[in-house]
Amino acid sequence: MKIALAQINVCVGDFENNTSKVIACLASARHQKAEIVLFPELTVSGYPPEDLLLKESFILSNIDCLKVIAEHTRGLCALVGFVDSDGKNIYNACAVIVNGTIKHVYHKVSLPNYGVFDEKRYFTPGNKLLSFKYKDIDCAVSICEDIWNEDFVSRLKLLKADVVLNLSASPFHLGKIKMREDILSKAAIAAKAEIVYCNLIGGQDELVFDGTSKVVDHQGRVVALAESFCEDLLVFDFEKDKKYKPVKVKISRGEEIYGALKLGLLDYVHKNGFRSVAIGISGGIDSAVVAALAVDALGGENVTGILMPSRYSSRATFSDAQQLCKNLKMPYHILNIENIFNAYLNTLAPVFAGTKPNLTEENLQARIRGALLMAYSNKFGALVLNTGNKSEVSCGYCTLYGDMVGGYGILKDLTKDMVYALAEYLNKKMGMVIPRTIITRAPSAELRPNQKDSDSLPPYPVLDPIVRFYVEQDYSLDKIVKKGFDKKIVKKVIDMVDFNEYKRRQAPMGVKITPRAFGKDRRMPVTNKFRDYQPGGLT
Amino acid sequence: MKIALAQINVCVGDFENNTSKVIACLASARHQKAEIVLFPELTVSGYPPEDLLLKESFILSNIDCLKVIAEHTRGLCALVGFVDSDGKNIYNACAVIVNGTIKHVYHKVSLPNYGVFDEKRYFTPGNKLLSFKYKDIDCAVSICEDIWNEDFVSRLKLLKADVVLNLSASPFHLGKIKMREDILSKAAIAAKAEIVYCNLIGGQDELVFDGTSKVVDHQGRVVALAESFCEDLLVFDFEKDKKYKPVKVKISRGEEIYGALKLGLLDYVHKNGFRSVAIGISGGIDSAVVAALAVDALGGENVTGILMPSRYSSRATFSDAQQLCKNLKMPYHILNIENIFNAYLNTLAPVFAGTKPNLTEENLQARIRGALLMAYSNKFGALVLNTGNKSEVSCGYCTLYGDMVGGYGILKDLTKDMVYALAEYLNKKMGMVIPRTIITRAPSAELRPNQKDSDSLPPYPVLDPIVRFYVEQDYSLDKIVKKGFDKKIVKKVIDMVDFNEYKRRQAPMGVKITPRAFGKDRRMPVTNKFRDYQPGGLT
Repeated sequence: MKIALAQINVCVGDFENNTSKVIACLASARHQKAEIVLFPELTVSGYPPEDLLLKESFILSNIDCLKVIAEHTRGLCALVGFVDSDGKNIYNACAVIVNGTIKHVYHKVSLPNYGVFDEKRYFTPGNKLLSFKYKDIDCAVSICEDIWNEDFVSRLKLLKADVVLNLSASPFHLGKIKMREDILSKAAIAAKAEIVYCNLIGGQDELVFDGTSKVVDHQGRVVALAESFCEDLLVFDFEKDKKYKPVKVKISRGEEIYGALKLGLLDYVHKNGFRSVAIGISGGIDSAVVAALAVDALGGENVTGILMPSRYSSRATFSDAQQLCKNLKMPYHILNIENIFNAYLNTLAPVFAGTKPNLTEENLQARIRGALLMAYSNKFGALVLNTGNKSEVSCGYCTLYGDMVGGYGILKDLTKDMVYALAEYLNKKMGMVIPRTIITRAPSAELRPNQKDSDSLPPYPVLDPIVRFYVEQDYSLDKIVKKGFDKKIVKKVIDMVDFNEYKRRQAPMGVKITPRAFGKDRRMPVTNKFRDYQPGGLT
Repeated sequence: MKIALAQINVCVGDFENNTSKVIACLASARHQKAEIVLFPELTVSGYPPEDLLLKESFILSNIDCLKVIAEHTRGLCALVGFVDSDGKNIYNACAVIVNGTIKHVYHKVSLPNYGVFDEKRYFTPGNKLLSFKYKDIDCAVSICEDIWNEDFVSRLKLLKADVVLNLSASPFHLGKIKMREDILSKAAIAAKAEIVYCNLIGGQDELVFDGTSKVVDHQGRVVALAESFCEDLLVFDFEKDKKYKPVKVKISRGEEIYGALKLGLLDYVHKNGFRSVAIGISGGIDSAVVAALAVDALGGENVTGILMPSRYSSRATFSDAQQLCKNLKMPYHILNIENIFNAYLNTLAPVFAGTKPNLTEENLQARIRGALLMAYSNKFGALVLNTGNKSEVSCGYCTLYGDMVGGYGILKDLTKDMVYALAEYLNKKMGMVIPRTIITRAPSAELRPNQKDSDSLPPYPVLDPIVRFYVEQDYSLDKIVKKGFDKKIVKKVIDMVDFNEYKRRQAPMGVKITPRAFGKDRRMPVTNKFRDYQPGGLT
């Protein structure tokens, strides 16, 4: 019996298009002789709908759509994710629709409420497992997290199903594709069943869903595999006790990062109604990588560079910036910020009389650039892409309302070392579009004479791993020092990370790439006197 | 037996000072012959610690502090809130410390995970109730939400305690003080016990805890009452079967709003290490109210007004702005934005050639003002207070990186009608500091000739209730129309609210005042195609 895995890109709240897409998949699956069609978690509403789930009209619309979908299941068994309601509680649910009739409804049992997940905020957990016979196959149903839960899997085993159908919306992070394969493999062996796993694909605010749907046999081997980072309709021919040929899940670290960033960018731009983007091009590595990615995703004609040199811009970076735009075949404008900067300094002179130039004047330059970018965006409707990387954003080495402007932060979850690696990857893929000098020059914000990032920050090869230990793994100062770092430097980094929470609170969203991104993945108070290096208490 | 309710203002993560404060209260309570001393929920760590709870060092510090506190409980029974850990899970806990020894530990059973709460993200719920005898009194313990839960209260009843001691960190919103009284009254009657309720006070990011600790007798009457919006040590003389004299909880709507805003502002400023604030003073009602509040809270010498007139500023508003600063005895600077504005227009001229002036030029003016405010803040270390109100922030009638700059949004959760009411309240309290013409003039952003808010927005008396229905109560379009509003206007407002989620995502935090504020109280996706007025589906 053929089972189709409809790995589709739905959009949160877009009931009309999501429904059409489901119906189109049903037709296509039927055409390919599939008899069971499996969709991702919360197919109808998109995932995660967040507080839209508190709106009665949202729930009602989603149930209306499910009924429309049911009418298009002639000759099929379709498993469709939706929000079920009993009038009092709501459930993260799967409808088993057979030939036009909703035969069963399953309620997700294991609700994740950690990391980026808030499912306990909304849903009541189910308490019953569901198995059903379709033609001669015994099927069991599960939704995403369920299959990650050992208790659930041991209950599954008792159902003695031939296949476990899983509807997922499992967000991407680096290494997640491998991790998921391991989890599914373990679960398939434990449940003694084939697992047919259909994952969502698409970008939704901070999250990217990579798809990579698959079938894992009861020996834990992947035997069918859908695409990563794009839509797919995988048709798997299931036969009881058949020995399938295993398939290798192979995706490099570079491909994972590239795939996630490109999809995240594309979907944020298009799902929010934009066609074009604008990027401040400094001649540095971050804006170069963002520009290359944007051109790769949207085409050069939809990406505009804004070059905003000042008295502190070196001729070399400015020329690199122009060369980059030429290489990428993207239009660009040059807006020298000098006159505006002088106008600010003159206007502020009476108030600043007797003070010395300091960070204030540096921030002003960044804010002028931010305002020019936004002016371009306002006038021509291009979304401003933010170019800040995770190392900067961690340490607050960025100006609020300055280089922190923008609708979407492409590099927000990449430490500087990852940005460099991505530059090399893109140059290989796109043909040396990023000038070598951009990659080799020491990073500088160019906001004062001879400035280098390393005046304010530890060198990136030291900073980046500290950021990972502290931000992504909650390591304490002592634990990081034990990894071989200088105590003073670690303390300085921790202080910067903690102190700059207020900046991140107003930062643009960005694509989650690591196991812990800034945003809803890491919810720190701004008002916080805890410093990780205190022994605590009054000792 | 005397029971002390130590209604203290602790700060998240400030273990050293929190511990000192607890110890000082123990001494003071002992001095007043109290035998039991009750503290707020999570006394040691502050509430809510959010993702600090994921740090092992945070948990360890908090337990160290609890041990230090225990050493200072000679002759007392102290109930102290802390984070308990069994090495694997953590618990929102209360230690019952008797004369230096931790005798019992209670784990909160009912973990709130809605609205602003995320307790299920961190804590494992307890499953055992705790009662203990201290001298001749039977005590039961509960933490905050527990006492709001009917099942919990009926289990409490079976314990037949004389008093139920409740440690709370119950955040303020309008009407919450009355609501809490009703809940406690019902619970006391149901549990057939006196409830001694100690609530946190203080501001923590978006939240204000109002205190208003109280004792409710088993007939549900408030018989002892602590202050609202400030620290207090309430000593209650408990006797079995005594008839107490009831106390009236009386606080006006105006006092509630004023108390919460002032405390929220003060604590945000001071707990984050600032002494002074800067405010852009336009001559309009919002900045006038923020300035008056700031002066009331911090003193005129710590509040600086920045007046930033342009070609579109009327003489009347400018003169009102100056008069306001004089009335409030606050220093102010005048920074005309004209030269900077011209410099921007000249710089952008080649790129904008052939386009007509539109919102872009209006936003530019707002962004120049934002950058000037931030420059002042950077140079002199004053926190910029944001002045946007909830009506504006709902509709996106505000400029990102322009009038939306600032560290803290005082009026963010007040619709325009509430801002006017607050102006009248402050004028009564502070003696007509806000010029009458500021209150009577039709609101305008003054970003183009003869602009009025009502050019872009429905009149506030129409807009404000629609915002409340839609944002705070999730009413659908039809339901709002049935309340007597024009369908076209409601649709327009809903569109504006939904479309502008991206602006709010980068807005400063502000004080929660209503039952649903923007921020962690309302978690909407930015990428969202749902419109509340669609019937949904393909119909």
